[in-house]
Amino acid sequence: MAQLRIALAQVNPTVGDLGGNAGLVVEWSRRARDAGAHLVAFPEMALTGYPVEDLALRSSFVEASRDALERLARRLADEGLGDLPVVVGYLDRRTVALVRPGQPAGAPLDGAAWLHGGEVLVRSAKHHLPNYGVFDEYRIFVRGDTLPVVRVGGVDVATVVCEDLWQDGGPVSVTATAGAGLLLALNASPYERAKQDVRADLCGRRAREAGCALAYVNMVGGQDELVFDGDSVVVGADGALLARGPQFVEHLLVSDLELPAAGPASGPGREPVAAPDGTTITVERHVLSAEPVPAAPLRPQEFAPRLDDLGEVYGALVTGTRDYVRKNGFRSVILGLSGGIDSALVTTIACDAIGPENVHVVMLPSRYSSEHSVTDAEELVKRQGVHSRIIPIRGMVDAFEAEVGLHGVASENLQARIRANIWMGLSNEYGHLVLTGGNKSELATGYSTLYGDSAGGFAPIKDLVKTMVWDLARWRNEQVGSDLPFLHPFEGAPIPEAIIVKEPSAELRPDQRDSDSLPPYDVLDPLLADYVERDMGRERLVAAGHDPDLVDRVIRLTDLAEYKRRQYPPGPKVTPKNFGRDRRLPITNRWRENP
Amino acid sequence: MAQLRIALAQVNPTVGDLGGNAGLVVEWSRRARDAGAHLVAFPEMALTGYPVEDLALRSSFVEASRDALERLARRLADEGLGDLPVVVGYLDRRTVALVRPGQPAGAPLDGAAWLHGGEVLVRSAKHHLPNYGVFDEYRIFVRGDTLPVVRVGGVDVATVVCEDLWQDGGPVSVTATAGAGLLLALNASPYERAKQDVRADLCGRRAREAGCALAYVNMVGGQDELVFDGDSVVVGADGALLARGPQFVEHLLVSDLELPAAGPASGPGREPVAAPDGTTITVERHVLSAEPVPAAPLRPQEFAPRLDDLGEVYGALVTGTRDYVRKNGFRSVILGLSGGIDSALVTTIACDAIGPENVHVVMLPSRYSSEHSVTDAEELVKRQGVHSRIIPIRGMVDAFEAEVGLHGVASENLQARIRANIWMGLSNEYGHLVLTGGNKSELATGYSTLYGDSAGGFAPIKDLVKTMVWDLARWRNEQVGSDLPFLHPFEGAPIPEAIIVKEPSAELRPDQRDSDSLPPYDVLDPLLADYVERDMGRERLVAAGHDPDLVDRVIRLTDLAEYKRRQYPPGPKVTPKNFGRDRRLPITNRWRENP
Repeated sequence: MAQLRIALAQVNPTVGDLGGNAGLVVEWSRRARDAGAHLVAFPEMALTGYPVEDLALRSSFVEASRDALERLARRLADEGLGDLPVVVGYLDRRTVALVRPGQPAGAPLDGAAWLHGGEVLVRSAKHHLPNYGVFDEYRIFVRGDTLPVVRVGGVDVATVVCEDLWQDGGPVSVTATAGAGLLLALNASPYERAKQDVRADLCGRRAREAGCALAYVNMVGGQDELVFDGDSVVVGADGALLARGPQFVEHLLVSDLELPAAGPASGPGREPVAAPDGTTITVERHVLSAEPVPAAPLRPQEFAPRLDDLGEVYGALVTGTRDYVRKNGFRSVILGLSGGIDSALVTTIACDAIGPENVHVVMLPSRYSSEHSVTDAEELVKRQGVHSRIIPIRGMVDAFEAEVGLHGVASENLQARIRANIWMGLSNEYGHLVLTGGNKSELATGYSTLYGDSAGGFAPIKDLVKTMVWDLARWRNEQVGSDLPFLHPFEGAPIPEAIIVKEPSAELRPDQRDSDSLPPYDVLDPLLADYVERDMGRERLVAAGHDPDLVDRVIRLTDLAEYKRRQYPPGPKVTPKNFGRDRRLPITNRWRENP
Repeated sequence: MAQLRIALAQVNPTVGDLGGNAGLVVEWSRRARDAGAHLVAFPEMALTGYPVEDLALRSSFVEASRDALERLARRLADEGLGDLPVVVGYLDRRTVALVRPGQPAGAPLDGAAWLHGGEVLVRSAKHHLPNYGVFDEYRIFVRGDTLPVVRVGGVDVATVVCEDLWQDGGPVSVTATAGAGLLLALNASPYERAKQDVRADLCGRRAREAGCALAYVNMVGGQDELVFDGDSVVVGADGALLARGPQFVEHLLVSDLELPAAGPASGPGREPVAAPDGTTITVERHVLSAEPVPAAPLRPQEFAPRLDDLGEVYGALVTGTRDYVRKNGFRSVILGLSGGIDSALVTTIACDAIGPENVHVVMLPSRYSSEHSVTDAEELVKRQGVHSRIIPIRGMVDAFEAEVGLHGVASENLQARIRANIWMGLSNEYGHLVLTGGNKSELATGYSTLYGDSAGGFAPIKDLVKTMVWDLARWRNEQVGSDLPFLHPFEGAPIPEAIIVKEPSAELRPDQRDSDSLPPYDVLDPLLADYVERDMGRERLVAAGHDPDLVDRVIRLTDLAEYKRRQYPPGPKVTPKNFGRDRRLPITNRWRENP
């Protein structure tokens, strides 16, 4: 057996920021060296950020990534880190590329490289390209077909990228044949509610398949609608979990492993292997250091405590919001505070993400606003210490109505749009990013105003059904005194109880209630989950116990709301299937489940 | 040789309207029978409409399509059309489907079926799945692996679907081996400017490869951002063009062909063939009628006259607009008429699409509107006979400014948003669809107001650069007296010359000109085409002769406008690569071509 101290750097890169991301690699490589690691690994596409989408089709960007990789290798050596093997994801291209229909222009690769001694030692690329859910990788990448095996401290270390773990028959299946002692997987795997155990189980299964220990390093941080949760893990060859990093924070997971020493037979060279998926994978062997490192006492393994279900959802929302604001160059946010639960929760998330001193709320009462709306909102402002301003909209509504006669829903929408004009105007004037308060239940059913309450730059709770909004508000109020890294240290419960318990209302006409237009949320929300997230049709929904009339009504509302959803701002994704890129429907669609 | 009269029905189905689309198939099959055809072919996915996107992942929709196909076969027989072979595209699924990561749920197929004698005679499916540009088919389909060869009137007729023509090595390459006498290709191929000749050339090349005549039937009509242009063609075994249908109208292209009679050797059965793309394609032979049809005089071939470049672009815009309005259940449209060229052209397109009696314009002058803006707009209203209304916005602007102090761009945006509130309010009150007047030059550079002039349901000219807007306005004025089917018979030039020649201005502040913020359009537009449509990076743009400073400025503007573009309404796509689904960039993107 040989001993190896590995470091998994779960870092938070920004798409396109090649210089900043290279800086991250240098900084965290130094920490790994300082921790005595023999090897440090970074996430998939850490150098470019992930996902790069159609940027991969622009050859100038691909060349810039390749150049940045070479420069990074030299810089690591220049800064005294040349002896530490650094494994990092980046964007590459196939050198010989066929030009034909359906082949992504320039043949881009989702690459992984070993950097050492100022040079790029070996390059490989993701073999299995995910093309479902939020992934569209057949569009932008071609397939890699090598498995690098690099001898470090006498241990043969193989590397694969993300989806290669999730699908059968590719490089992982070749790892056992190649006799690797450690399989290193670079990932940019987005958070999904309750996905964690699936991931650890998968790592265990693949370790047994590869016949060696497996180290899984994941990205962390928000990028548009995706939130990467970190949660890097190390498992033994028997599949048992050895170490685990925390969720939603940058971290260096350092783990001492006892691994099988490589046999003398397998020196440097290239060896093609027929993989079970019908492709040929070439094993590329390199030797960095053939001798085992001197034995030393093993550090105890790190096990970061797991967040509970609501904690991890909340962590994803704060992370997604913080990084959207920061990575897009904003320092402050503005939103309309109505006195209802949605804007109350969004204000709280914003305070947790960027601090109350950067959060601006506007209260925009109309003739239909209830007394408690303003007082409850003021109480929240007091508890959270955000900037606030009251602007009555009555005069503006009157000015419109003097010129244009609107009735019913048209008149209700006008009020919502006048409010949006105000927060967009203040955003343009002061440079705040507008946060949008809509939740998934209203987004699904179209219970919102296009260019009104749905207007804004980022929608922190767009993937939460309404019942979850209440659950999270209660959960957040219970965290007073918690040391979770993504919570602002409010001294008391940040959300007034009156806001949590009041009946929901849009307050756009006298005595309006959500229940005038929608079924009760505890009935609606499970139905939406089955219809939207599980793609169940009418028959299956009824068989699952949903009321047939309600099913018809909700399907109709949801199908009709497709256009509005297209124009909704991005927001952090927490369910396996929400309304974003991973559910694309035609806008013009005459299909009715129950004609 | 044997003689065969084939009919290609280029029809306009609606996504999801299974009943209506089946009705189209029956109606046009009857016309084919009345024309003496021995065979009628419909486009790819004619029964479901195309593209169905994620509807393919809903099993209830797949089952409904399969049921609709069986019912269509019976209905054709019930209505006395059972003897006519009908080839039609529909949505199917693989019967035995593996469940694994990356496999579309339910294993949907982009199917083609032969209907005859009240039954579904043979089913096949598209082999090559396009996954670039506007296509995402790896996400929703699995691959078909058969080539049906059906003997009709003694001729062996093979069928393939759309992309199978565009890529090498699949079913078309097996067609020659199978000894087919005619290759029938069902298509839903979207219009792209100047794509037509590529298509006819391709058909010629594939006919020579298959060693037989090729009949290409295409869909027609608008579906969200896609416009299908018809333009069905028939080519001989030597690749020569024999017949061609018109663009942008439903049509039955009837063509008499002399084709090689099938040899007696090849009876019914299944025969696997190794295809050059590494897959196995099974040739499925069926016999409907082994005897040649009696010889008769051949009809002269039809050659629909070709539209010129501007004519076909204009036809695509009218078709896309008409079908978006109609297929989404609207009967009328509303838009703001500013006196500028963009809204003038959109009004004209709307009149051509649905008639002036269904077009409503609002003129919304502010304190910065010039005298000529209103008089020019009124002149256009007079020439086109649309409904119009003048609503000054000054009082509304004053009411906002009394409560919220806005300056500079924030104040300009406020005016644009107040205008949007008015047309959205009138839309909600009267049920008109809002048309948006923005063009591609301003959309690319972000020269528009989010939730202001960019608000609306459909954007007819979103894929036209500004210079093209002027070109089309002049072209349209020259068509007085034309009999093009997609033009309204105005008695004079519909667009006042003053609107075409005036300098463009947003009129949101005193003496504002587009040239204050943007380069001249005749310089900007070619640069946008190279950057956006051709994905050229900075270095290549400069090498192509664009001014380096301008390149930097336009790249910066264009990259920053990504968020606004995401929220832009759909509009007909006329370029190979526009800002829609076929160009996806991260919103958060720190990449700078020139750091």
